[in-house]
Amino acid sequence: MIKELQPKPVITLTSDFGDDGAENIVAMVVHGINPDIKFIPFTRQVTRHSILEGAFLLAKYYRFSPRESIHIAVVDPGVGSDRKGLAVRTRDYWFVGPDNGLLYPAAISNGIERAYVIDETRVNITGENTFHGRDVFAPVAARLSLGEDPLEIGKEVDPESLHKMHLEANQVAHIDNYGNAKLTTHPDGLTLGDSVVIDHPEQRIEVPYRRTFSDVPEGSLVAYRGSNGTLELAVRLGDAAQRLGLNVGDRLAISMLNPGS
Amino acid sequence: MIKELQPKPVITLTSDFGDDGAENIVAMVVHGINPDIKFIPFTRQVTRHSILEGAFLLAKYYRFSPRESIHIAVVDPGVGSDRKGLAVRTRDYWFVGPDNGLLYPAAISNGIERAYVIDETRVNITGENTFHGRDVFAPVAARLSLGEDPLEIGKEVDPESLHKMHLEANQVAHIDNYGNAKLTTHPDGLTLGDSVVIDHPEQRIEVPYRRTFSDVPEGSLVAYRGSNGTLELAVRLGDAAQRLGLNVGDRLAISMLNPGS
Amino acid sequence: MIKELQPKPVITLTSDFGDDGAENIVAMVVHGINPDIKFIPFTRQVTRHSILEGAFLLAKYYRFSPRESIHIAVVDPGVGSDRKGLAVRTRDYWFVGPDNGLLYPAAISNGIERAYVIDETRVNITGENTFHGRDVFAPVAARLSLGEDPLEIGKEVDPESLHKMHLEANQVAHIDNYGNAKLTTHPDGLTLGDSVVIDHPEQRIEVPYRRTFSDVPEGSLVAYRGSNGTLELAVRLGDAAQRLGLNVGDRLAISMLNPGS
Repeated sequence: MIKELQPKPVITLTSDFGDDGAENIVAMVVHGINPDIKFIPFTRQVTRHSILEGAFLLAKYYRFSPRESIHIAVVDPGVGSDRKGLAVRTRDYWFVGPDNGLLYPAAISNGIERAYVIDETRVNITGENTFHGRDVFAPVAARLSLGEDPLEIGKEVDPESLHKMHLEANQVAHIDNYGNAKLTTHPDGLTLGDSVVIDHPEQRIEVPYRRTFSDVPEGSLVAYRGSNGTLELAVRLGDAAQRLGLNVGDRLAISMLNPGS
Repeated sequence: MIKELQPKPVITLTSDFGDDGAENIVAMVVHGINPDIKFIPFTRQVTRHSILEGAFLLAKYYRFSPRESIHIAVVDPGVGSDRKGLAVRTRDYWFVGPDNGLLYPAAISNGIERAYVIDETRVNITGENTFHGRDVFAPVAARLSLGEDPLEIGKEVDPESLHKMHLEANQVAHIDNYGNAKLTTHPDGLTLGDSVVIDHPEQRIEVPYRRTFSDVPEGSLVAYRGSNGTLELAVRLGDAAQRLGLNVGDRLAISMLNPGS
Repeated sequence: MIKELQPKPVITLTSDFGDDGAENIVAMVVHGINPDIKFIPFTRQVTRHSILEGAFLLAKYYRFSPRESIHIAVVDPGVGSDRKGLAVRTRDYWFVGPDNGLLYPAAISNGIERAYVIDETRVNITGENTFHGRDVFAPVAARLSLGEDPLEIGKEVDPESLHKMHLEANQVAHIDNYGNAKLTTHPDGLTLGDSVVIDHPEQRIEVPYRRTFSDVPEGSLVAYRGSNGTLELAVRLGDAAQRLGLNVGDRLAISMLNPGS
């Protein structure tokens, strides 16, 4: 959480819904229940079914929201199955979504205080089974934003029972619009001037670790601490994901090379 | 309309504008005229020029908006021609857009009460001819939201004179981000356990009708009642539109197979 | 600026961020500092790194915003280098973004009054180097919207020192969702009935200049004064950019043909 934010909570949404209006239907359902809260979606373009990418982005994004904001996340290949729906109370926020690990890295990093399994039969606004973002999670988030007792929407459970997911290092967690690959790895042991070595199937690539892409010539690969705080691979004015053939979910064989050692 | 919505009307927009800002210019024009109403777009990604898809989505979406909301829709291959612009008053809403059938399924399903042909010369804010979403429909919607008399923006006409469009069954009306194909067909005669038979050019495909995609194995085709209430074809964790080569607007030869008969 | 807009300023954003949530993080940072101002993005789909397209769109879009609105624009291949960040005060607006020409056509057309170079060390909310939209420009815009003295965020400079960019005629500045190519050229010398001649690498193409695409048969090329006020090339119900192989940034050899002469 960035310091000194004005204390006006919002409702957000991180999803793999794509562009066809599903995100805005969620906005509409929220508005219909609590017209006074602002709805600021994060993204609807999580890679289809990628719980890893959704969890990574949510864990980076939520810190920019005011305290008491409510974060809906829906990457939910198991919708309609017996996977549970959750409302997780952390130190500063609510997280609402499926119990498939998606909420976990964000929630654990803020400090989980209580967890509730949603009773879908009590909250579903249409009775349909395939769009819980609209029918279950949006009304739950909106009702929580009105201060409703969470016991009205579900049953408290032991946070230890949640589906756990941890963002293991050296995975490609996200590729941005510039083709920069955001990794799960933290560059904490690295010093400017070091290199990152990627053992790629056909070749071993040594990438200089710099402050940012402006520190290498146009067309060069570079590694740096990205805007999410994790290691990022880019080609200055180029497309690193394309150059290296990277996709979300890839695991890289990465080692750190310290020229001084 | 979902029950018990808070009575704060919004203005929506369903269009094929794509991502280049046209949707937000409409938002800006609305704000410039009525800064106090919330603008919640539905989608800007209707398939280019597909009146069928736009009409289908609008007819499904509008029900989630509070009473007295105003729905702009623009899929308008005839912009600049002599096709008319409409403001249609239904039991609970206003619908504003071109008279090409786009508004019709939504309006008729809510109950048309009055219809007005917009006098473009009286409302166009720029005098341009190629972007009526911005120049004509946005100001009309915003003015109606302020309670302006519709006779100030056009002339009342017989609702019978509107361009009629009906969503005939067995058309592919929309393909969502997961590759699920939403059909115009209502599955009302089907029972769980039945099958849907598609006579595809090269083969006859029998698809089980289930509660949702979670009821079939990964990679299997399934038909179910989708979140819009109509028949939907999916591949669990796959892409049905790709598998079956479906595009928006396709007409399918579908028959229902009742194993018990 | 469209006349008679209600005087409620907004904050906008024109960027090449794409769909991964960067735009909404900017919205969130703005909300965290000034929760009472509306954030209406223009587009996040400027062609990657195209300062030309970003400048063109911003210069067309900003006129639809109420006086005192604040326009952030970020197409910023030099982020993290020593390119400066600007806050430019014009007659009616603020423009905030990198000093690479992006803001210039919009600002000059509204009349530049004062310019400030942002002191990044005083405003950066995270200390990161690669996402100035979030860390520098969003907080600057939000603080200006609260009426903060611009000398708190930077140092006044001579407007003559700004990086100048002019939109030279006959460039493809934007291609919209319909494949219509928006040129930088003003059609002021043209009369309906004239033609536009494009000397294309392999052929000379004569395109009739009409009021709009509805004035030519389906599938025909046509030139007209587009919704931005500049010359536009379209194929009625087709895709002109695809037909002519046009990309943003292309320079065309165009001449005007007056059949009467």
